[in-house]
Amino acid sequence: MHEKLRIIIVERDRDRAHLIVDALREAGDHQITVIGEESGLARRIADIRPDLVLIDIANPSRDMLEELALASGPMERAVAMFVDRSDQGLTRAAIEAGVSAYVVDGLRPERIRPILDAAIARFHMFSRMRNELAATKAALEERKVIDRAKGLIMRAKGIGEDQAYALLRKAAMDQGKRLPDVAQAIVTAAEILG
Amino acid sequence: MHEKLRIIIVERDRDRAHLIVDALREAGDHQITVIGEESGLARRIADIRPDLVLIDIANPSRDMLEELALASGPMERAVAMFVDRSDQGLTRAAIEAGVSAYVVDGLRPERIRPILDAAIARFHMFSRMRNELAATKAALEERKVIDRAKGLIMRAKGIGEDQAYALLRKAAMDQGKRLPDVAQAIVTAAEILG
Repeated sequence: MHEKLRIIIVERDRDRAHLIVDALREAGDHQITVIGEESGLARRIADIRPDLVLIDIANPSRDMLEELALASGPMERAVAMFVDRSDQGLTRAAIEAGVSAYVVDGLRPERIRPILDAAIARFHMFSRMRNELAATKAALEERKVIDRAKGLIMRAKGIGEDQAYALLRKAAMDQGKRLPDVAQAIVTAAEILG
Repeated sequence: MHEKLRIIIVERDRDRAHLIVDALREAGDHQITVIGEESGLARRIADIRPDLVLIDIANPSRDMLEELALASGPMERAVAMFVDRSDQGLTRAAIEAGVSAYVVDGLRPERIRPILDAAIARFHMFSRMRNELAATKAALEERKVIDRAKGLIMRAKGIGEDQAYALLRKAAMDQGKRLPDVAQAIVTAAEILG
């Protein structure tokens, strides 16, 4: 929270909104937008592209909680949710929707900053892990596609694996493309033409 | 927190320990062990194999916090940490050490249960993601090893890819082993003998 953040606060209650804004202003020079109505949230998020969304809802239904959590884009930014009451099912739903901090009956001005620090740290940690998973999955998929393309070339030309791979690599270099993309093109072509 | 959990509480202050135990007893029929001294934590955890570790330390140093977080095994179970004071660096360190809930100045009996619900939900979510990452990495590594073994067989025997793969598969079936393990054995043998 040392850096300047863009923060959206979703809060129907004006007094509580003031309280949150004051607590955040003390914690640093942030750009804060307060939204009183949940309905416009997705559009405002698209406009402002906040680093953090803080949602305060006294007594959410499960549908409302999941809708708000998803609308705030928990894969792209930290989302902290404050509720007055919860149960095990609601808590689990919020966390599985990707909320970085889910705080029951804990909205006190002096606690906002450490909660948001934790939410941001958790978001970054999760984000790193998600990126690593996506990269590993992509590498595995690329390997599979390259294998399939090699097999197709070997059969079509009656050549060995090394030669097939050399052909793939040459085509990629000649066309200025990535090898997995050339391999995918060959697999796609074989599916359509074969 | 509906199921019966094995919980270890790390708490030097007897009064606070009582307060936490009472709050947990109200939340369900759990098997609770209180540890007054942090030094024995790792051994007690090995004995009890708790589902959850709750650590309350008034004013941790960074070393102490990281040591306790790691000793409680945050990859195997939910770890909730309560501190009286923190800063951004400490908060980040706790979360990167794998703590599922990091609560600053929030140890009130009525809030313990929702915090532990959230910690457990978060632990399970993270655990699923970590398992998926490990499985994807393993699949990628296995594919690489199988490719290398196929290449070695093709060169050694002067045969094509399909035949090399068929040999690998036959060897795995004959020996009642997994194909990636046979491939790894071939790669290892080639490294030692080659």
